[in-house]
Amino acid sequence: MFGWIKLSLLVASLAMITPNSPIKTSVAFSVIGYLITVTLIPRVGDSFIKIGLKGKDMSKAAPAHEIPESMGVVSAITYLFMMFGLIPFVFFKYLVSYSNLSNESFQSKNYLDQYNSVDDTKLFPHNKLSQYLSAIICLQGTILLGLFDDLFDIRWRHKFFLPAVASLPLLIVYYVDFSVTSIVIPTFVLNHLPFGDVLLNVINNVIKLGNHLVTYVTGLSFSTLNSDYSVPQGTPKLLDLGIFYYIYMSSISIFCPNSINILAGINGLEVGQSVVLAIIFLINDMCYLASPDVTNAAYDSHLFSVIFLLPFLGVSLGLLQFNWFPSKVFVGDTYCYFSGMVFALVGILGHFSKTLLIFFLPQILNFVYSVPQLFNLVPCPRHRLPRFSTRDGLMYPSLGDLKSPTPISKTILSVLEWFKLIKLEREDGQIVRFSNMTIINLNLVWFGPMREDHLCLLILGQQFVLGTTMVLVRHTIGPWLFGYDNLSWRIK
Amino acid sequence: MFGWIKLSLLVASLAMITPNSPIKTSVAFSVIGYLITVTLIPRVGDSFIKIGLKGKDMSKAAPAHEIPESMGVVSAITYLFMMFGLIPFVFFKYLVSYSNLSNESFQSKNYLDQYNSVDDTKLFPHNKLSQYLSAIICLQGTILLGLFDDLFDIRWRHKFFLPAVASLPLLIVYYVDFSVTSIVIPTFVLNHLPFGDVLLNVINNVIKLGNHLVTYVTGLSFSTLNSDYSVPQGTPKLLDLGIFYYIYMSSISIFCPNSINILAGINGLEVGQSVVLAIIFLINDMCYLASPDVTNAAYDSHLFSVIFLLPFLGVSLGLLQFNWFPSKVFVGDTYCYFSGMVFALVGILGHFSKTLLIFFLPQILNFVYSVPQLFNLVPCPRHRLPRFSTRDGLMYPSLGDLKSPTPISKTILSVLEWFKLIKLEREDGQIVRFSNMTIINLNLVWFGPMREDHLCLLILGQQFVLGTTMVLVRHTIGPWLFGYDNLSWRIK
Repeated sequence: MFGWIKLSLLVASLAMITPNSPIKTSVAFSVIGYLITVTLIPRVGDSFIKIGLKGKDMSKAAPAHEIPESMGVVSAITYLFMMFGLIPFVFFKYLVSYSNLSNESFQSKNYLDQYNSVDDTKLFPHNKLSQYLSAIICLQGTILLGLFDDLFDIRWRHKFFLPAVASLPLLIVYYVDFSVTSIVIPTFVLNHLPFGDVLLNVINNVIKLGNHLVTYVTGLSFSTLNSDYSVPQGTPKLLDLGIFYYIYMSSISIFCPNSINILAGINGLEVGQSVVLAIIFLINDMCYLASPDVTNAAYDSHLFSVIFLLPFLGVSLGLLQFNWFPSKVFVGDTYCYFSGMVFALVGILGHFSKTLLIFFLPQILNFVYSVPQLFNLVPCPRHRLPRFSTRDGLMYPSLGDLKSPTPISKTILSVLEWFKLIKLEREDGQIVRFSNMTIINLNLVWFGPMREDHLCLLILGQQFVLGTTMVLVRHTIGPWLFGYDNLSWRIK
Repeated sequence: MFGWIKLSLLVASLAMITPNSPIKTSVAFSVIGYLITVTLIPRVGDSFIKIGLKGKDMSKAAPAHEIPESMGVVSAITYLFMMFGLIPFVFFKYLVSYSNLSNESFQSKNYLDQYNSVDDTKLFPHNKLSQYLSAIICLQGTILLGLFDDLFDIRWRHKFFLPAVASLPLLIVYYVDFSVTSIVIPTFVLNHLPFGDVLLNVINNVIKLGNHLVTYVTGLSFSTLNSDYSVPQGTPKLLDLGIFYYIYMSSISIFCPNSINILAGINGLEVGQSVVLAIIFLINDMCYLASPDVTNAAYDSHLFSVIFLLPFLGVSLGLLQFNWFPSKVFVGDTYCYFSGMVFALVGILGHFSKTLLIFFLPQILNFVYSVPQLFNLVPCPRHRLPRFSTRDGLMYPSLGDLKSPTPISKTILSVLEWFKLIKLEREDGQIVRFSNMTIINLNLVWFGPMREDHLCLLILGQQFVLGTTMVLVRHTIGPWLFGYDNLSWRIK
């Protein structure tokens, strides 16, 4: 019965594969990716357990049996295959014009002489191919890194910066293809902030100094070059970050994978938040693709994003089916890194790395909220997962012990308590325990104990509402704030 | 003491890194790759053993303790990092001209207007970047595949074709950038073979039919397009293979990794043969790079090859140091696949896939010799490694049992014996045992039992002599046979 549904889905998606329509084909590959994932995961689970990639679900009533860990690898590899297969379809129209040229050129010798190798590059968008390929490299590198992490448990301080290495080819392609390193200063900074002008001038000169230094050492200039993606003349004040823009993009490639990795620990959350993120990103992309005003450059950027996100959605939904409460598989660090990097690269290559960050608001909030523990200002236990109670089968906020309170930790905890952002337990007026600082625990503090899947749904719901709000903000308040809208690169 | 040598090597190689000289920088990265490999391997070995990547060396006197397996991963990942780091240096001159443009364009508005985004592609060789990136993708994919094989022991029939998937981006870039699918028919076929002309015509028409069919189905033409890499007009008869050329290249990407994987089993042989191959390839490349007659296209191809092979040589030598007799680590399938794919891709993207095959002659001979066992015409035991004798510490040819002799197996074995290509053991006139069909065993049959490292050296020596002979043949008899030399694309 279930096999028939799968088969008809497969046939339908194969029928959807159309040259000349990358989006349709991407939808088809998304469905195929989903089918491959749900077919493979139950089949390879035992092999994963056999080589030690397994774990016990601590939030279930005993006896907790071992389930396969790192199964996100299956999704990730399936995704890579899908993206390989998509290449000819994404570039189909150019390939055809290319082969038509060949037929004509065989017929007429003059025609052939006109096309020397330099002009050949005009016919095929090699720069777009480079972008596509660099994105795949970046993902493959991230998957390899994640796999090593799952296999060897790399130390936190070693693995934190590694995504930046994987994203190096991405940055080089960015340098060569776009090299837009300017950001727009919101008009209110210039108009309403006291000394806004002066402040900007100082920042600008510091940045220029840094850039001159880098250019002197490397011989390369990192300023914005002329490009389709440049903001038009006459727009509000631009700040050319130069090399600092590359550092910023590199930070994004570090931030996205790690931020998904730390908002984790309950069944379905890692994949669930990635699915929600993908949907929000796709809604934002559709705003561009469906707009009649959209510029070619913006259209291409968001088409790129859609092509990369649809198959990602497919393989993630396949994984979610097995990772949802009660989990039959764990996803592993591989999936978190892979998923974070997919968003980082569509943001970077699609030129909306700042928009990307507002969509990552839940992850950012979780990170900021975690900072006191991550930097050990407040004690941080090995695991900060919520606590499962075998008595009622519900999740409770997990508590950290404050054994040797310092003035800093006491202040932080008291301030958070005042804002109702933490639950403290006192003995003799002294803080002895506090709820661990993750938004997972915070939700349990706010809304009381609940079942694991309800908790996950709650967080995903918050994320979705926040995300769609951000899409609205992005396209209403954003253009007003910055004085222009990159939808049409038009000055408001 | 040893640390000082390493340090001074590192300083020397860092000093060698020069923008504008890709070869020098590649040499530097080769040394750095070597240093990283020899530093990492002893440090990560225990982690590999801990997760079950370990094996016992069967060819040593007891007690055989367990040593880490799959350590080729370390070389492969180091190599990837080196190739990432090389990108800016390989493309440095273009990056600089790019940023100079930016400075000028900021000074003069007219200048800026001249360069719209289409013309930008003229400045930067995006096609070369695509080649480079597709090569990295192909290698990363191969490493992932190899790693899975080492972890999960994928079945032979599943993994055999997988390198073809990893090489898909390579073929697409080939299609877009070169699309030369013609091969030159040796002049003697046309001049001296009876009915050579007729035969060629028949083959040509069959190929044309196949290609028309493919073009009809896909809408794409796979014939040779005009390209820098085309053979000049007036050269001897060309045969345009079209789609079959892509199938041929795909086969090469399957053949190279697998052929290295089956010429294996004694300490140092997998890495050793790769090192010898790299040296032979580099000698061949130098013939082009040092020639005053060389065309730009041929120069670029072989420059590409050198840039990819030098760091490979570095990381392989680092691995060989630990894998040489008596091995402290095993290399694993990852290394064999990775190494084979490096050669396949420089052959494909460097346009010498036919030359590549003659350099793989030892591997081809080993494969052809193995065919009766691989296809089960003659019984094939699970392992065909030579047999280690604890008595004298020497290696002896391993023997297969002929339990139920068939007419085919008896004929094959008798014919091989007649040519002295096998050792047979008879009982009552019936063949009961035969030496396993690998050139490793064959060498033991020919030259008698010897120590493992002498056996390895012998095979590597044979390979080196055969390889350098082939380089000579390639540049003397080759041009005479084919009627032209692609060194200068000149008709002889």
